[in-house]
Amino acid sequence: MLVVMRDHATPEEIAHVVDRLHEAGAEAHLSQGEVKTVIGVIGERELIYSLELEGFPGVSEVIRVLKAYKLVSREFQAEDSVIRVGGSQVGGGVLAVMAGPCSIESGEQMHTVARAVKAAGGTFLRGGAYKPRTSPYEFQGMGLEGLKLLREAGDEAGLPVVTELLDVRDADRVAEWADVLQVGARNMQNFMMLQELGRMKRPVLLKRGMSAKLEEVLAAAEYILKGGNRDVILCERGIRTFETYTRNTLDLAGVAALKSLTHLPVIVDPSHATGRRDLIAPMCRAAIATGADGIMVEVHPDPERARCDGPQSLDIPAFAAMMEALRPLAALEGKSL
Amino acid sequence: MLVVMRDHATPEEIAHVVDRLHEAGAEAHLSQGEVKTVIGVIGERELIYSLELEGFPGVSEVIRVLKAYKLVSREFQAEDSVIRVGGSQVGGGVLAVMAGPCSIESGEQMHTVARAVKAAGGTFLRGGAYKPRTSPYEFQGMGLEGLKLLREAGDEAGLPVVTELLDVRDADRVAEWADVLQVGARNMQNFMMLQELGRMKRPVLLKRGMSAKLEEVLAAAEYILKGGNRDVILCERGIRTFETYTRNTLDLAGVAALKSLTHLPVIVDPSHATGRRDLIAPMCRAAIATGADGIMVEVHPDPERARCDGPQSLDIPAFAAMMEALRPLAALEGKSL
Amino acid sequence: MLVVMRDHATPEEIAHVVDRLHEAGAEAHLSQGEVKTVIGVIGERELIYSLELEGFPGVSEVIRVLKAYKLVSREFQAEDSVIRVGGSQVGGGVLAVMAGPCSIESGEQMHTVARAVKAAGGTFLRGGAYKPRTSPYEFQGMGLEGLKLLREAGDEAGLPVVTELLDVRDADRVAEWADVLQVGARNMQNFMMLQELGRMKRPVLLKRGMSAKLEEVLAAAEYILKGGNRDVILCERGIRTFETYTRNTLDLAGVAALKSLTHLPVIVDPSHATGRRDLIAPMCRAAIATGADGIMVEVHPDPERARCDGPQSLDIPAFAAMMEALRPLAALEGKSL
Amino acid sequence: MLVVMRDHATPEEIAHVVDRLHEAGAEAHLSQGEVKTVIGVIGERELIYSLELEGFPGVSEVIRVLKAYKLVSREFQAEDSVIRVGGSQVGGGVLAVMAGPCSIESGEQMHTVARAVKAAGGTFLRGGAYKPRTSPYEFQGMGLEGLKLLREAGDEAGLPVVTELLDVRDADRVAEWADVLQVGARNMQNFMMLQELGRMKRPVLLKRGMSAKLEEVLAAAEYILKGGNRDVILCERGIRTFETYTRNTLDLAGVAALKSLTHLPVIVDPSHATGRRDLIAPMCRAAIATGADGIMVEVHPDPERARCDGPQSLDIPAFAAMMEALRPLAALEGKSL
Repeated sequence: MLVVMRDHATPEEIAHVVDRLHEAGAEAHLSQGEVKTVIGVIGERELIYSLELEGFPGVSEVIRVLKAYKLVSREFQAEDSVIRVGGSQVGGGVLAVMAGPCSIESGEQMHTVARAVKAAGGTFLRGGAYKPRTSPYEFQGMGLEGLKLLREAGDEAGLPVVTELLDVRDADRVAEWADVLQVGARNMQNFMMLQELGRMKRPVLLKRGMSAKLEEVLAAAEYILKGGNRDVILCERGIRTFETYTRNTLDLAGVAALKSLTHLPVIVDPSHATGRRDLIAPMCRAAIATGADGIMVEVHPDPERARCDGPQSLDIPAFAAMMEALRPLAALEGKSL
Repeated sequence: MLVVMRDHATPEEIAHVVDRLHEAGAEAHLSQGEVKTVIGVIGERELIYSLELEGFPGVSEVIRVLKAYKLVSREFQAEDSVIRVGGSQVGGGVLAVMAGPCSIESGEQMHTVARAVKAAGGTFLRGGAYKPRTSPYEFQGMGLEGLKLLREAGDEAGLPVVTELLDVRDADRVAEWADVLQVGARNMQNFMMLQELGRMKRPVLLKRGMSAKLEEVLAAAEYILKGGNRDVILCERGIRTFETYTRNTLDLAGVAALKSLTHLPVIVDPSHATGRRDLIAPMCRAAIATGADGIMVEVHPDPERARCDGPQSLDIPAFAAMMEALRPLAALEGKSL
Repeated sequence: MLVVMRDHATPEEIAHVVDRLHEAGAEAHLSQGEVKTVIGVIGERELIYSLELEGFPGVSEVIRVLKAYKLVSREFQAEDSVIRVGGSQVGGGVLAVMAGPCSIESGEQMHTVARAVKAAGGTFLRGGAYKPRTSPYEFQGMGLEGLKLLREAGDEAGLPVVTELLDVRDADRVAEWADVLQVGARNMQNFMMLQELGRMKRPVLLKRGMSAKLEEVLAAAEYILKGGNRDVILCERGIRTFETYTRNTLDLAGVAALKSLTHLPVIVDPSHATGRRDLIAPMCRAAIATGADGIMVEVHPDPERARCDGPQSLDIPAFAAMMEALRPLAALEGKSL
Repeated sequence: MLVVMRDHATPEEIAHVVDRLHEAGAEAHLSQGEVKTVIGVIGERELIYSLELEGFPGVSEVIRVLKAYKLVSREFQAEDSVIRVGGSQVGGGVLAVMAGPCSIESGEQMHTVARAVKAAGGTFLRGGAYKPRTSPYEFQGMGLEGLKLLREAGDEAGLPVVTELLDVRDADRVAEWADVLQVGARNMQNFMMLQELGRMKRPVLLKRGMSAKLEEVLAAAEYILKGGNRDVILCERGIRTFETYTRNTLDLAGVAALKSLTHLPVIVDPSHATGRRDLIAPMCRAAIATGADGIMVEVHPDPERARCDGPQSLDIPAFAAMMEALRPLAALEGKSL
């Protein structure tokens, strides 16, 4: 941590900061220029985090050079993490393709989609049983019954299944039926849920919050790893900006940055990022060219009658055609598909 | 709902949309210009919400004129809601002042603050027992023990107490000890928590999410009212923007807008909005001049040693001085303080 | 400037940075912790600005503690600048009120507004002769003819006039007719215009860019002061965020921050910030309570027929009523109105 | 244009809007539901733009379905525009590669870079002679002398040259020396400059403003086309968001969207978008996979000594290696490189 003093801070102000540091058990290293004094602070991670010196007299700025995370960093583990689920995997030279409807609506729907996802080369089946909806007047999902339909369809097609955990109280129940537990963007900083998932044995798909900085994504993942669960997959799904043409702004440079900051696999969800069917295929291509470890795509047998996210869902032929077109690109990037 | 067709959409495309509307049970009203056709859609609220026509061939834009909320709107209830808790109230000609430390640290700390808040004219005691922290290496709060200290300090000073509910599983326990349950910015769209609070009898302080639009704030409150709990207080605490000088950007025009859109009381938290001690007093003044129903301020007996948010906390003399200076302003705005 | 090295940067990487600093003529001060090395850099302002060390091997972050401005800072001049124009002034215990239509439309319109602004206690007449419009199909202003109408109306009413300079080539011509030259938000970083204004003798009203950080506002003003013109008034007019209910997000905490960072006067324009007539009065109140030196308000004799910005313009009775209501508030803040 | 009335708007309010429309010469089509009335407005483009009905009594929302642009749209011209400059081109099955230093520093620097850009397969030489800099204390460019060095280096290597026009008064002079005139992000809405460029014969490279919506980018280009100059290249260079790890947020979904909204070619500048050398290659790949018509990259013979943007510049071997690696990807996308 660096404490930058105001221009011409008085010796008393500087001494006051140094005293507080010593009192707390940290070391202080002074670097004094003609107008600026900077105090380097050295100590234990937890100690440094507990020190908030921004409001001290004479202090201009406090800069934290210590990151908010450790276990998820490339410094801690240089080689890529690979998450294996059933016969599928995320990371490590394979392109993961998680596909399925926004919400589970019926057994027939799920079986149709599952077979189509498998046939096209998809590696995970996704589907929402509990839906986070802005308004209480929107469809909230089928719940437990939906989970069972998802499981059956996945089993029949030979695909592991991914679904969102919306309520921490349902963690065990959802884990009973699903292979990968998804934390939605709105729950990325639901720390109680993250802690609970840290204690569980199921892989977690952690979606980036709508206004989460990269460091906050990594700190959220750190909660899960610190709890003992190392199987975390990160997912970029667009951030909220001033642009309204797309539902969110897909941050692919953020994906490239995450790949260098962490050993965890990173996938991309262009459906939620753009909210527009016609942008899904180009953004899947871009994600693969960026080096992402996988894609997550909404597929529905009849998007015009979908109960949720129809406008950003591909129908089955469009999904199959896109997958076909992605093959040579994935090969070029050294990923099997 | 309005469906705006693309320029020169074909009759088939228009008929396709109209058919889908009729199939779903809605009425379609066509308005055709030379190049543009617009289809007005009329039907039940739930029905309209379930229709997503954005991806239909020939459709350019779908505009929802039906709002995502109803019970919280001024149209539904014209007169201001007033929330009464113990001897204090929020809304209705009284300026609510919720003050106290970011986190509860000890009985002595809480008693000192509680007495000082009461003496200066504060009307609620706030304090966090469970703390949402970006990094798992930061202080996470005292938990249940903290709740008890908060209760005792509030009782002794004669102040109702406000505290954050961080885990939906703790709802009953926290409600046992606190008068007002706070939903933090990160949980504003934790819909499971909102539904649980809808079933409870405790007033709720709902903080605006970091990237929540006003309509989303109102839709989140709607979840609680729809569940049966009408005692909701909204709180503006800054939104996340590109500006980094302040921790967030305080949206006071949003407060004025909320006051016209909803009958619920709206308070302002300048501590979290700005993250800077020197901006608290001017932003409290601005909030009152905007017409806010109250303020929420972090006060600590020794901000330099606070375990959380010290840089944005006032010490006791500064809080007392600010309160003194706010009195004539509150009077000018017709609010008792 | 501080150069923060990556954890465990090698001695060679550190030496490489230090060598580059010495080569450029700067001093390097090392502060070495167990895992982190930080290099403090000391030298001339221009030299420091020319050094970009972010991409050097082993460098994690470069932090500029030297600000991008000097002459505009409180450190450089502690007392408030006061700008005097005709009988009016901005700063120094007087609340400046700049009012008038978005665009100049006719002599009659301008005379009507000018008299009304004066009668209500306004101190400057504003009006646009050259209009920046998103689309080339929108009304672009009356140009020189409009300038003359503005001048006449201001002279008749005894009000100095403010107008936007849209084209740097018109600087002399506009300065011939106007008392204060406004730089619009879209031109805040039109550095050629800023340099031209630095050479002129007219006060400048510099509006904050839609996505400008506070430091960038101050650096833009620095261009003008560095050129020799010290009469600069800053104007907050809302920043662009994800919120769409208001046209922009008014950043009043930014105004309070600017008041502490610079000696220049700061005024607030709620018309452009909110884009909504009903929010103008509450935001004028909030601006005054924040400590702003003035307000800028769009007033039109017939907003429903205005050629520009009608929805965010007050009519004359509403303006007069608002001014009346602002008087006791201004008095409370120690400002004459 | 659609005028959405408030719930239960009175017949008088509706009639008032309709009267105003008729008075202005527009047609009004009413569509009345049980609670909502919507008025469709039909008339000439310029007329519609002049109508601002947001503030009328009873009006809830005004929705403009008419776009702010026409000549640049796909509806107006379905086939891709191709811009030819010297032997190079932008659009039409060729991947344009514009490379060179941020700022022109010397003849030797430019010759070295020009030869290297040509050798690696680049198709345009870029270099800044006039630099827009946040602070007046930063290097401002070599001016006219720099332009000449750029021209010489381009001619020698057989590359057309691109440079930024910073001051509208320099338009003719810069056009004398450069093949393509660049409008920087800060000038995207400098409408006077856009109008001047509309009258000129030189192709224009129009960079997206830091906080410009896609529709605003297109409306800015419309100014140039409306003036008579149809040779406009759009350039995505990142937008400003809350994320600070990268300098800006590269909006590749915006690039895909632009490709469907306009016939103009769209290129991508990952150097300015990310500000980080290590993200340039992945973002060039992603841009090509998105369907962009070209890339713009900063290349410097000695980035550590660059006077501007060194941290986001590639050195010559890194540029050559990247170009080599891009070839199979460009081929896969059907673009010659």
